[in-house]
Amino acid sequence: MLLCDIGNTSYHFLHVEHDYKKNVLIFDPSEVEETVYYICVNPEVKPLLERLENWIDLSLHVDMSNYYETIGIDRVMACEAIDYGIVIDAGSAITVDVVKYGIYDGGFIYPGLHAMEQTYKNISSALDYSFNFELPLGKMPKNSRDSVSYGYLKLLYSEVMSHKADIYLTGGDAKEFAKLFPKAIVDERLVFKGMKNIIKHAKELIC
Amino acid sequence: MLLCDIGNTSYHFLHVEHDYKKNVLIFDPSEVEETVYYICVNPEVKPLLERLENWIDLSLHVDMSNYYETIGIDRVMACEAIDYGIVIDAGSAITVDVVKYGIYDGGFIYPGLHAMEQTYKNISSALDYSFNFELPLGKMPKNSRDSVSYGYLKLLYSEVMSHKADIYLTGGDAKEFAKLFPKAIVDERLVFKGMKNIIKHAKELIC
Repeated sequence: MLLCDIGNTSYHFLHVEHDYKKNVLIFDPSEVEETVYYICVNPEVKPLLERLENWIDLSLHVDMSNYYETIGIDRVMACEAIDYGIVIDAGSAITVDVVKYGIYDGGFIYPGLHAMEQTYKNISSALDYSFNFELPLGKMPKNSRDSVSYGYLKLLYSEVMSHKADIYLTGGDAKEFAKLFPKAIVDERLVFKGMKNIIKHAKELIC
Repeated sequence: MLLCDIGNTSYHFLHVEHDYKKNVLIFDPSEVEETVYYICVNPEVKPLLERLENWIDLSLHVDMSNYYETIGIDRVMACEAIDYGIVIDAGSAITVDVVKYGIYDGGFIYPGLHAMEQTYKNISSALDYSFNFELPLGKMPKNSRDSVSYGYLKLLYSEVMSHKADIYLTGGDAKEFAKLFPKAIVDERLVFKGMKNIIKHAKELIC
């Protein structure tokens, strides 16, 4: 079975236990002959795939009644991977979503690590710091680097911990954020897991 | 008594109860004949004022032992205005500082309203929203605008409220943030109040 998670920059394939990426600008999806189960958030790629019979859009097989219309399908799939917990997908944006007993309970969007460092830098060159993931979370800072790090990391930390649920970390910056959430389950294939669950439950795909 | 708080764009004067601003690019401080008690965070303006005898730099009269070296002097003055509480100065950056029994207890820096709206917009045009200051804070959102607003506003709200202290709001966006913190004391002259306190306690300035 070939799975594919298509973002703004790449086709991310998973074939059994092997995953690899192809650049959206140069890869031609019609070259693939086998059946591909995919999700796609890239508006330019979507129309290309709709024409190809062996590319199966998994978004059409999800019960969306507990989600909302404009939510990214990658967020939905990460949520479909778990039964109870809080999913942090740390990429260019950080999406944080809560799932309770298999049902989506809402979520929020926070700027990604690099976007936020850029934001502070743009406000003032005096705020141009790399975040300190080892900052003490229990007390208010008294130095500039930690003041900025606290603003970004501690506020996220408190919100996530307030939900008192298992934390699942995925996305390109998952390993970085694992320093902040040492008890989190880091799973870079969470979206693929959700896709597999959708396939398993969609009887028409198994037949 | 003439007070002046100098930022990156303007000289902000207070004369008795009347305040007014002058553009840093065109105003000539040597035109002022009376004594001016000032603070200045603008590195280009500082050397101009050091040469003028009637411009008194109040930063030299603050006991800085409880602050830290790189903290902005405007933050220090806002803290010097209160005895116990949490000061939110909402400008291009949002500084949040805690004061307990007259002593600085630390603080953090968060991006300002407009900087953060720009950040979300830069990540994706799908996140280009004005924040919803009326969003429900008690539950996780299920729509895009509130997902972004929650990420910015709810996280700040929870952190501020966790300190269980009176909230003092100042800065250009104070009125906007008063919607989020309806019990806050909005005081656009908090920095000037702190400056007056410094003058009162610095005996050498009274003589």
